[in-house]
Amino acid sequence: MSLKTVEWRDGSVIMIDQTKLPNELLYVKYSDYMQVANAIKTLVVRGAPAIGVSGAFGLALAALQSEAATKEEMVSDLNNAKKVLFETRPTAVNLAWGLEKIMQVARSCKDAEEIKKTVVETAKQMAEDDIKINMTMGKNGSKIIDNNDTVLTHCNAGALATVGYGTALGVIRASKEDGKNIKVIATETRPVQQGSRLTAFELKHDGIDVSLIPDTAVGYTLANNLVNKIIVGADRILKTGHVFNKIGTYQVALLAKH
Amino acid sequence: MSLKTVEWRDGSVIMIDQTKLPNELLYVKYSDYMQVANAIKTLVVRGAPAIGVSGAFGLALAALQSEAATKEEMVSDLNNAKKVLFETRPTAVNLAWGLEKIMQVARSCKDAEEIKKTVVETAKQMAEDDIKINMTMGKNGSKIIDNNDTVLTHCNAGALATVGYGTALGVIRASKEDGKNIKVIATETRPVQQGSRLTAFELKHDGIDVSLIPDTAVGYTLANNLVNKIIVGADRILKTGHVFNKIGTYQVALLAKH
Repeated sequence: MSLKTVEWRDGSVIMIDQTKLPNELLYVKYSDYMQVANAIKTLVVRGAPAIGVSGAFGLALAALQSEAATKEEMVSDLNNAKKVLFETRPTAVNLAWGLEKIMQVARSCKDAEEIKKTVVETAKQMAEDDIKINMTMGKNGSKIIDNNDTVLTHCNAGALATVGYGTALGVIRASKEDGKNIKVIATETRPVQQGSRLTAFELKHDGIDVSLIPDTAVGYTLANNLVNKIIVGADRILKTGHVFNKIGTYQVALLAKH
Repeated sequence: MSLKTVEWRDGSVIMIDQTKLPNELLYVKYSDYMQVANAIKTLVVRGAPAIGVSGAFGLALAALQSEAATKEEMVSDLNNAKKVLFETRPTAVNLAWGLEKIMQVARSCKDAEEIKKTVVETAKQMAEDDIKINMTMGKNGSKIIDNNDTVLTHCNAGALATVGYGTALGVIRASKEDGKNIKVIATETRPVQQGSRLTAFELKHDGIDVSLIPDTAVGYTLANNLVNKIIVGADRILKTGHVFNKIGTYQVALLAKH
């Protein structure tokens, strides 16, 4: 089982504190939405899908914290919490999406009590859906992975970037589950080192063969045919085919093309 | 005046301890060739030309340390010291060159006393020549630098890689001395960070405008036309045009070509 990055348990949010990785696998427990906001801001939790669900969990906490008696008061409280949560990473599209989804559900309820119950259930469902989506994506993606492939990846699009399982690394996991022999080369991903701190950590945690290279060694690694395929995540993909992702993705792609 | 990386003074070798940079500009003083060998091994001194002259200075110290009475004994002592110095970085071509040059001079002398005097003078001359060569190279190279250019450089081919002035950064210095307005973008150069620790440090020390980027941002920087030219050093250049240099140079070149 891959790591569970963010989880709802007994009215609290449990997260892996990713700022402590790879030295320590520490879980933190939040019952105040302000703590969740701070966690997003300080990169305790990061990765587009993980942030989206964390935002939803933050609003669920805000609903439980609220003493509102009416639907209007409750929606107003949630709106205030939404603003705080949104401002933590205003460019994260998944965060805006997760928050708006919860707000829609809240507005469709008939009273404060129903809102409390429904937003918690919705946020939990979003977390479950995220894992299911990743597993499906992984299964589809694994079709292009051959036995004995070595796959290079940049940054972390793994279990630690999602609720669990991962997107780019989900493809690796699904390939492994299919019985394929697969090796991963992870770039360090400076300046914040998501590759060395997170990708190498989570793959090693799951027993997947992983080697770490500095970002300067991508050209050498490709030129010497040490890699068969490259899989990266994406913060956003446009209909035009443009991909937005961590700094360095563009040069990895250019080097791969050459 | 740019930094003096390695220098002969009153029968001792003075070096900047580059492992302490950029936090501390510390000069160390050696009177034993074994200290010089250790300095090369632990990267107190690095950079092809600086290592070549350091090796020569190491042999000069060994000559002063020797109690040999005859030419044969002295050459034998120097040969032993040469082996120790060579083994510190056996792939450094300049080191082998610097050591062999001193051995040739020693073998051409008539007695132990003359060897002592001559190897010290030869090593000092090699250090002076290195600076002169760099200044000439800088002057020649500066012809391709235009006013208001922004130049990207990878690793450190500066004063700190040579006895002083530098090769790639010598071109920058000569352009500045010509009155040209010039900006430098230095890559961090993982894994050992010669760019952030040394290049950014020595350019700032000399009052040259320098910005530091992670190695992952080279593609972005070039794609956005933030750079006009790229200058790097070379550990070795073949007649075929092949260049050997720090890991990451190849991908910088490929990205620039694109």
